[in-house]
Amino acid sequence: MNLKLTLKYDGTEYHGWQRQPNGITIQEILEDALEKVMKKKITVTGCSRTDAGVHALMHVSNFKCETSIPVHKIPLVLNQQLPEDIRAVDCTLEEDGFNARYHTKEKTYRYRILNCEHNDPFLSRFVWHYPIKLDVDAMKKAAESMVGEKDFTAFMASGSSAKTTVRNLKRVEVEKDGNLITITATANGFLYNMVRIIVGTLVYVGNGKLTVDEVARILEEKDRTLGGVTAPPQGLRLEEVVY
Amino acid sequence: MNLKLTLKYDGTEYHGWQRQPNGITIQEILEDALEKVMKKKITVTGCSRTDAGVHALMHVSNFKCETSIPVHKIPLVLNQQLPEDIRAVDCTLEEDGFNARYHTKEKTYRYRILNCEHNDPFLSRFVWHYPIKLDVDAMKKAAESMVGEKDFTAFMASGSSAKTTVRNLKRVEVEKDGNLITITATANGFLYNMVRIIVGTLVYVGNGKLTVDEVARILEEKDRTLGGVTAPPQGLRLEEVVY
Repeated sequence: MNLKLTLKYDGTEYHGWQRQPNGITIQEILEDALEKVMKKKITVTGCSRTDAGVHALMHVSNFKCETSIPVHKIPLVLNQQLPEDIRAVDCTLEEDGFNARYHTKEKTYRYRILNCEHNDPFLSRFVWHYPIKLDVDAMKKAAESMVGEKDFTAFMASGSSAKTTVRNLKRVEVEKDGNLITITATANGFLYNMVRIIVGTLVYVGNGKLTVDEVARILEEKDRTLGGVTAPPQGLRLEEVVY
Repeated sequence: MNLKLTLKYDGTEYHGWQRQPNGITIQEILEDALEKVMKKKITVTGCSRTDAGVHALMHVSNFKCETSIPVHKIPLVLNQQLPEDIRAVDCTLEEDGFNARYHTKEKTYRYRILNCEHNDPFLSRFVWHYPIKLDVDAMKKAAESMVGEKDFTAFMASGSSAKTTVRNLKRVEVEKDGNLITITATANGFLYNMVRIIVGTLVYVGNGKLTVDEVARILEEKDRTLGGVTAPPQGLRLEEVVY
């Protein structure tokens, strides 16, 4: 059986999704829990390698396994083995060929900035606290200028192994609700740190360090050093994956 | 100068408000931060001894201190010394006689129950996850029956040193929004664990272990052993203090 599993997680305590020697990852915790439930070693394939400290409202992975547990009961059984900050919310049976990593059509990430003097202890795990007032209208214009099928080399962290740096960025929306600024980005795929660099660049527009025109030029010149900072991880959440 | 300080905190990592030998408390953290800022030992008086794991949207304390820092700047300076899960949000100058503990007229606490199959990693620090469906209408009726000026011995944990067990419970409101059940309680003061026992008793009504009539009888009989469980701390938050 090829099983598709959907997780929700608070990534604060983890070194990201992907198993690695230097810290506890969500993949490792999930595979250990699956081993306890299924009584054998399981390897999962994840839709996205979220970074250390990044969260997911909907993270999809798949794994192959025979089991007598009814598929819809797997989340409940698995949650008894998972820590409280990782929850399995759905499990379905897929065709053998389904691959959670390679078959994604579209991903949506959401980033939240708390734009006021004092941070909020009830939000601080999930926002970037930015005390200097940001010009949201300018950020909206710059966000629009980013949208399209383009080479996003300027918005990619070094150390990436992407085969192509062209991505179809379908949406970058900046919204403000009270002190909370939300940036939602949808694409057919994202380069390494791309959303966090988009956000950092929009913040540079919001605080006046960059103009809207300069953002377009940075993209054309494909030079990462000209854009904004890489926004900190805790404000970022993988929101939706479409297959 | 007698200064009134308002804090917000996520109590997850602390052994409650009051300084004690067995764990780190919010009072201790605050007094240490104030000592760094004011360059001398400061003792604060808090409005409420919140339990281990309980949060506060508005916790008020006062302390006496001479300082050349403008009073409205104290939160900003103090926040540089405080951990992210405790934030100073306001500071004002009060008359010498003001006492944050003894001059409270009214306090409001709010408790949140997440009533669905799976817990939510983004809420789990701040809710009681209760997977069995609760009858909210019955809980509302039982909540109404609790309101009034009464002897609340039945809703007090042992180990309390209260001089009187009579409190004026002005409001107990049960609201439901999706899977989230919110219980808001306002009184002139609360006994030890009183809100958590009110919530535990309402949950016993919601799951059918107690009837609305039995709740009235439990209060009359002043017997703690007849009521519901003491609800876990993480769902509770001190919401407002009125002077």
